[in-house]
Amino acid sequence: MKFCSECGGTTETLIPEGDSRLRAVCSTCKTIHYVNPKMVLGTIPAWGDQVLLCRRAIEPRYGLWTLPAGFMEVEESTANGAMRETMEEAGARIELGSLFSVFDIPHVNQVHLFYLAQLKDLEFAAGPESLEVKLFTEDEIPWNLIAFRTITATLKFYFHDRRQGVMSIHTGDIRELRLPHEPYTDLDRRQ
Amino acid sequence: MKFCSECGGTTETLIPEGDSRLRAVCSTCKTIHYVNPKMVLGTIPAWGDQVLLCRRAIEPRYGLWTLPAGFMEVEESTANGAMRETMEEAGARIELGSLFSVFDIPHVNQVHLFYLAQLKDLEFAAGPESLEVKLFTEDEIPWNLIAFRTITATLKFYFHDRRQGVMSIHTGDIRELRLPHEPYTDLDRRQ
Repeated sequence: MKFCSECGGTTETLIPEGDSRLRAVCSTCKTIHYVNPKMVLGTIPAWGDQVLLCRRAIEPRYGLWTLPAGFMEVEESTANGAMRETMEEAGARIELGSLFSVFDIPHVNQVHLFYLAQLKDLEFAAGPESLEVKLFTEDEIPWNLIAFRTITATLKFYFHDRRQGVMSIHTGDIRELRLPHEPYTDLDRRQ
Repeated sequence: MKFCSECGGTTETLIPEGDSRLRAVCSTCKTIHYVNPKMVLGTIPAWGDQVLLCRRAIEPRYGLWTLPAGFMEVEESTANGAMRETMEEAGARIELGSLFSVFDIPHVNQVHLFYLAQLKDLEFAAGPESLEVKLFTEDEIPWNLIAFRTITATLKFYFHDRRQGVMSIHTGDIRELRLPHEPYTDLDRRQ
């Protein structure tokens, strides 16, 4: 942040009194500008033993597969946001289930939440940010063409839990270090 | 947002091409400024059948009781943020447990996450944002002096689960409509 969004003055980076972190502070009106991580919300839309994936029509990871997901907007709940993204990206009407995964990705300042979901019908269709949307069984999923590690992890846990017959919540961190052939986790602002 | 944080130019509120929501867009450099909800992270620090609460030394809800919690910072995980806030507000060293509650509060654009925690010792102490910190059994908790509804809900679920002998995750929305005598849920920026 170079300029104050309140008065247009220049900002300087300093630790405000009573704080312990560097913040952008306006030199003119003294407003402190906090920056906080963002939430990405998505669903695992199921139809029998299949799940619905979207092939990305936008960067990053153009052409790779993902669960429908995107940034949480103001004045919505995580559940409503997850449903909205599922409609926007996959044109899919769902019955929302429980919260299924919560993954931290500290190096990109994001937290990803995925909800279980049941497709209400098969009238889904690619939205403007998807090249195509398609149902996959576990064996059919293009595991080496998944866009983000939180998607891979969520899908792995999902099929594992389904085999066990018990869905539980899964939490954890996705760290910056990558294994060979693993894609990065960062989502762009417009997903 | 009145001024662009990138170039200092004035912003206008419009729906960008390909978007469906009003955004602050810079009239000069065309940067789109997104606003997203914030996460509040906290813990339920337990010691035997007691939990540690903090009495707020800051507005809003000065003097009322809360679990240690505060806004997630960049470059930290939800778990690390919850531990940091517990140290900052209650001076308490904890062993972090599972994610316990996730509450949406859409009307204040916040999501609150609370983790289970075990106190490592009794050497806790009020931080600068707390008047005092104290252990309470369920019967001793000042239920009508709790600062926020997400705290009340988290504590009620916690003691309920403990009686049942099974801790599970709890999710839900906190809506704007209040019942009589219920405090508001909004947290201030500095909690």
